[in-house]
Amino acid sequence: MTISIVGIGLIGGSMAISLKENGFAKKIIGVDASQENLDKAIRRRLIDEKMSLENAIAASDIIIVSIPVNAMLQVLPEILDLVTTQVVMDVGSTKSELLKSIKNHPNRKQFVGTHPMAGTEHSGPEAAIPNLFDNKTTVICDANDSSNEAVELIEKLYNSLNMNVIQMKSYAHDIHTAYVSHISHISSFALALTVLEKEKDEKAILDLASSGFSSTVRLAKSSAEMWVPVFQQNRDNILDVLDEHINSLSKFRTHLIKKDFKKIHELIEQSNKIRRILS
Amino acid sequence: MTISIVGIGLIGGSMAISLKENGFAKKIIGVDASQENLDKAIRRRLIDEKMSLENAIAASDIIIVSIPVNAMLQVLPEILDLVTTQVVMDVGSTKSELLKSIKNHPNRKQFVGTHPMAGTEHSGPEAAIPNLFDNKTTVICDANDSSNEAVELIEKLYNSLNMNVIQMKSYAHDIHTAYVSHISHISSFALALTVLEKEKDEKAILDLASSGFSSTVRLAKSSAEMWVPVFQQNRDNILDVLDEHINSLSKFRTHLIKKDFKKIHELIEQSNKIRRILS
Repeated sequence: MTISIVGIGLIGGSMAISLKENGFAKKIIGVDASQENLDKAIRRRLIDEKMSLENAIAASDIIIVSIPVNAMLQVLPEILDLVTTQVVMDVGSTKSELLKSIKNHPNRKQFVGTHPMAGTEHSGPEAAIPNLFDNKTTVICDANDSSNEAVELIEKLYNSLNMNVIQMKSYAHDIHTAYVSHISHISSFALALTVLEKEKDEKAILDLASSGFSSTVRLAKSSAEMWVPVFQQNRDNILDVLDEHINSLSKFRTHLIKKDFKKIHELIEQSNKIRRILS
Repeated sequence: MTISIVGIGLIGGSMAISLKENGFAKKIIGVDASQENLDKAIRRRLIDEKMSLENAIAASDIIIVSIPVNAMLQVLPEILDLVTTQVVMDVGSTKSELLKSIKNHPNRKQFVGTHPMAGTEHSGPEAAIPNLFDNKTTVICDANDSSNEAVELIEKLYNSLNMNVIQMKSYAHDIHTAYVSHISHISSFALALTVLEKEKDEKAILDLASSGFSSTVRLAKSSAEMWVPVFQQNRDNILDVLDEHINSLSKFRTHLIKKDFKKIHELIEQSNKIRRILS
């Protein structure tokens, strides 16, 4: 099978590595707006060949679109205009707006909207790593709007990556990811800002930062190019969760001000229940 | 050398493992208010023997006190009352209140206040692990109030654990740890509360939680028994950082409400500067 990857960054590049390694793809074609990224991807042997979007589509069985979700809104319809029998999938972190925008495209059935729940705080082809998707979950959204054949093919692709595939409506996906992904990023960005703002002694941060701090702010290294469009497209859900999060922090603040440590004890024990869900 | 460890939990137990393994301690004596913990510690071979506090002190060269910081305020003076030539150290996450409370104790010079910046979200003797301290930093506070011999001995102990030792005033320690440790815990507790509060669909959390979410809420599994006393003793510093953190989150909120994504882009790029400090 020949697979084109449009956008050879962390996700696209990591898929390129694994799909070639497991034999699902015979050939990987790279398409990227950045010539520099394409050259890096060739030097790292992430892709076999670079091509223009048109030529890549014509030469492929599957087209994976892994670009920021704002660029996706423009590029995906252009791709769907060009496909004949190919199957197209995206890997974006938001789904509702994208799927609404192509709802009436004549080739809608050849597209499968997906979101593999995997990533790191790094970006670009240099961030691509093997086994990024191993044992993670991927979501297929609004599968009813795709042809059965297209969904089956993409499920096969994800199974070859050793991923667990679940299906979900796009609006439900966007609500759930606001909770379990987008708010974590905002929390990390804000925590990094807080510490950078208040702690002028950078050497102290470097010396004292424990593994706890590092894991809490790790996501603050994530790229604005990727995340701002996600926050833009999922704004309403994120605002809802963000309000609740500020509210949770304010409870700690109020109890601290009142020196009501019994209440803080209760809050912590409540939050410990996350153990039940995340081992 | 014979070392007594008062409080055989995550930190005390992990020290027991490493100090025995590296040969610094010939014998490890365990003291704990919980008979169950002592029995577990013996079954796990974390300690060679259990003793009463009095007998343990009499039999030891070094006494390591690794109990919650509220219990420390009561137990440490009792220990110092009993020492003759022994050196005592603590490993607590807050320092000012403790060191103030024993400032005038006749045996103050035999005590070294320390804080190894290492830990996990787990607690109890079952959480003790090898190499917990490897390549981490430990802080010795107000070293001038300890005898040179005591500080040198404790530095040797930490060096045997492969730790980097730095010295700091206790008030500075408490400010810095509010930034790089305590706020991370409050942020994680609050994030877990937020998600548990809003996301009633626990299966969705389980399915969708990415590694990003897991690393951001990992600390929310931490024990209330340990952390409430830390928040109590470092309340003023934590309130200051917490206010700033709520303020940072509110900036994201305001820009989201106004759909000012250019400003959000700027905030993220500012927060990315944490890369400069944390690799």
